[in-house]
Amino acid sequence: NAAAGESFGARRLGDDESLLPLITSANLACGFHAGDPLVMARTLRLARQAGVAVGAHPGYPDLAGFGRREMALTPDELEAGVLYQIGALAGLARAEGIELAHVKPHGALYNQAARDPALAGAVARAVRAFSRELILVGLAGSALIAAGQALGLRVAQEGFPDRAYNPDGTLRSRRLPGAVLETPEAVAEQAVRLAQAGLVLEGGPAPVETLCLHGDHPASVANARAVRAALAERGISVERL
Amino acid sequence: NAAAGESFGARRLGDDESLLPLITSANLACGFHAGDPLVMARTLRLARQAGVAVGAHPGYPDLAGFGRREMALTPDELEAGVLYQIGALAGLARAEGIELAHVKPHGALYNQAARDPALAGAVARAVRAFSRELILVGLAGSALIAAGQALGLRVAQEGFPDRAYNPDGTLRSRRLPGAVLETPEAVAEQAVRLAQAGLVLEGGPAPVETLCLHGDHPASVANARAVRAALAERGISVERL
Amino acid sequence: NAAAGESFGARRLGDDESLLPLITSANLACGFHAGDPLVMARTLRLARQAGVAVGAHPGYPDLAGFGRREMALTPDELEAGVLYQIGALAGLARAEGIELAHVKPHGALYNQAARDPALAGAVARAVRAFSRELILVGLAGSALIAAGQALGLRVAQEGFPDRAYNPDGTLRSRRLPGAVLETPEAVAEQAVRLAQAGLVLEGGPAPVETLCLHGDHPASVANARAVRAALAERGISVERL
Amino acid sequence: NAAAGESFGARRLGDDESLLPLITSANLACGFHAGDPLVMARTLRLARQAGVAVGAHPGYPDLAGFGRREMALTPDELEAGVLYQIGALAGLARAEGIELAHVKPHGALYNQAARDPALAGAVARAVRAFSRELILVGLAGSALIAAGQALGLRVAQEGFPDRAYNPDGTLRSRRLPGAVLETPEAVAEQAVRLAQAGLVLEGGPAPVETLCLHGDHPASVANARAVRAALAERGISVERL
Repeated sequence: NAAAGESFGARRLGDDESLLPLITSANLACGFHAGDPLVMARTLRLARQAGVAVGAHPGYPDLAGFGRREMALTPDELEAGVLYQIGALAGLARAEGIELAHVKPHGALYNQAARDPALAGAVARAVRAFSRELILVGLAGSALIAAGQALGLRVAQEGFPDRAYNPDGTLRSRRLPGAVLETPEAVAEQAVRLAQAGLVLEGGPAPVETLCLHGDHPASVANARAVRAALAERGISVERL
Repeated sequence: NAAAGESFGARRLGDDESLLPLITSANLACGFHAGDPLVMARTLRLARQAGVAVGAHPGYPDLAGFGRREMALTPDELEAGVLYQIGALAGLARAEGIELAHVKPHGALYNQAARDPALAGAVARAVRAFSRELILVGLAGSALIAAGQALGLRVAQEGFPDRAYNPDGTLRSRRLPGAVLETPEAVAEQAVRLAQAGLVLEGGPAPVETLCLHGDHPASVANARAVRAALAERGISVERL
Repeated sequence: NAAAGESFGARRLGDDESLLPLITSANLACGFHAGDPLVMARTLRLARQAGVAVGAHPGYPDLAGFGRREMALTPDELEAGVLYQIGALAGLARAEGIELAHVKPHGALYNQAARDPALAGAVARAVRAFSRELILVGLAGSALIAAGQALGLRVAQEGFPDRAYNPDGTLRSRRLPGAVLETPEAVAEQAVRLAQAGLVLEGGPAPVETLCLHGDHPASVANARAVRAALAERGISVERL
Repeated sequence: NAAAGESFGARRLGDDESLLPLITSANLACGFHAGDPLVMARTLRLARQAGVAVGAHPGYPDLAGFGRREMALTPDELEAGVLYQIGALAGLARAEGIELAHVKPHGALYNQAARDPALAGAVARAVRAFSRELILVGLAGSALIAAGQALGLRVAQEGFPDRAYNPDGTLRSRRLPGAVLETPEAVAEQAVRLAQAGLVLEGGPAPVETLCLHGDHPASVANARAVRAALAERGISVERL
């Protein structure tokens, strides 16, 4: 999966037209941290043409910070805000005949919901309130996955081919050197390893069911191509969520 | 019908708890001109408890101006923005088991869509894209009603018991003295007249199928009570949209 | 001192006209958490008519949360955001012939800058960049006061007459019962105690040089009157910052 | 002159580092239609390093529409909003030791203030309230220039080297073919003509005292280079506002 529709008005971000054909599931920004309604409508059309599954990518209400700055919302505020964003995207998706397949929180919300059970529960309740058919995507082995499972939701445990992992299975902080893998080869190799072996976390082994590719840096397209080729070579098929 | 959920964060506007029991259909702000997600969630709960029909009240993206300042959106921007807002409210409504019954544009959007066929068409297309079951509420005899009818939507032609009408059936401008009826008695009397006789406009007679009560000024509750009593006295029943 | 100008567009918050005559220094919201430009202009006019000193009350960019939700800004983002808000208010103040006297961060920013030296330094640098004449107002004995002093700024150490203090001189959490003093008499008594004796904090005694009155709850005006009367009775004069 | 600082958070727009060395006066977005505080701070630094004069480029509060959508603000709202934006930029400019030289409205506000005397007067009053030293930049021969002159402000009448003019001296609508000159040669030639001969408008001849270069499309830098070379060749010197 990869994020898409992160432009806002006249300001473009990412190269959706190149990336969408290389992925199977797209997470669309919903207007809080990126994506105005017209950008969302156009990205939905591109996603339909590319035949990818579409999910909501709700974030914090922070355009200037692109949803990457932590915010202290109450669980009630968060639940309402996530449900609002899912609904808004689902509304626009009707014009394209698209039904949403999944929900994946964005940025700081993704990280906070991975470790804070109260926030994770709020996200999971919002997803369930919208539809029990939606798949909740979260960091493999995280509090968000646990919250989704506790509510009976289908979940997809996520790994990051282009991010370095610590020996305990957590992500290496972006503030440390070597946090991001540099070459398409290294990214592709890690993608295969995650898909085949999953992760070994403190709480036990966790499968990796979906791989996140980043869409907003120059190597995105090259990385996506390398990952797809390496998975195909090992006979690992990729499917829409 | 009346607007509800026009608070934003800590800032309250209107008295939803008093007004909702007096109306049959509530138009809920959707976050662009008023109403943050938590306010919307709470107002939906109040609406369910009061047993009123709920509709979306989409507006321009202008919190400071409360959606009352005209903006020059393209039809594409407007269609996407209205569909976004309907979807967002419908998402939150699922948590309360509520299905939206209608859509009524707010403020400057209501007025511009009443006279501009291109904008009216954009609003009507957004409503149809969401659901052909939604009722489009607009000024009686306006371009918005015509646009909805042209797309095969159900419409509800609206009259204003508390606003003075010109002899040609248009609303007297708020900039002129006497634009707003002053007493609950006058408001109630006009409500009966509109319900019984409709309006005679330049293009011919138009029925008045729903009456708008304003929720944001001190006399709102008194006016609503007087209208309900007067209609009941004449044997005119009111129903949810 | 007290906050003022916290309305936003059509949504009123607080009763500036009653409160301003009872205080000597007003902290004006600057558009990020409250206060649009027209509200700011009108509040500046009221402040001039009441003869009170005016300061900037910068907050986080979070209208829905009223600046009361913590956000993780970098020091650079915070410094630029505070300087932006001071400048915006100072620009509007020129139309009234008012020069700003002080700066006091609002809400979550006030609390985070009280304990985090990096954020406190960013706020202090913004104040110094605007003018070395501005007084920096912060929690008595806090990191913000220390940061201001380290940069050579004049500071005003603040106490809260209507909030309960812990034995160690810190504020009792709002989540605990008894966090807010209930009667004007208790508030007035604590105001006198703070003004005369200051606080005894972990790091030593701290004077209390300015008293904060809250402007956004029903008892605000009664509390302000009681404080003014009690201070006058003990011969404690109050002055503009 | 050219606009700069039109990025917003992670979303880049324009190439300030290439353009600034080619112009003498930069109009900086002030946060309403573009430019968050950190972008503004960084652009001010670039402008100082490039040695260009800095002016405020206030716009409508419409990030998604990039300030290019007309909005119906009252003169009071507009005056306060423009003064707010000038002040905000001037505050950040202090950190770089920069004093603002001019004010030029952006986008839809530029166009509306060029033809509507009430809005033009509001902009001019905001400029005067901030400082009588600021130069007001507006369309040559427009209502905005007249409003500035009526208040005793210094004005700079502006021409557009890359836009086609109608025979009556007005700009050819962007909706018509040929509205934008296609080659750097044509742009440079028109720049020389405007600088030497000004415009002949309905109300009489108008000098052209400053030339606007657009910063947000691919040919911006090539056009700017061609204009500078052509002016230098004819012995026309360019100076900071």
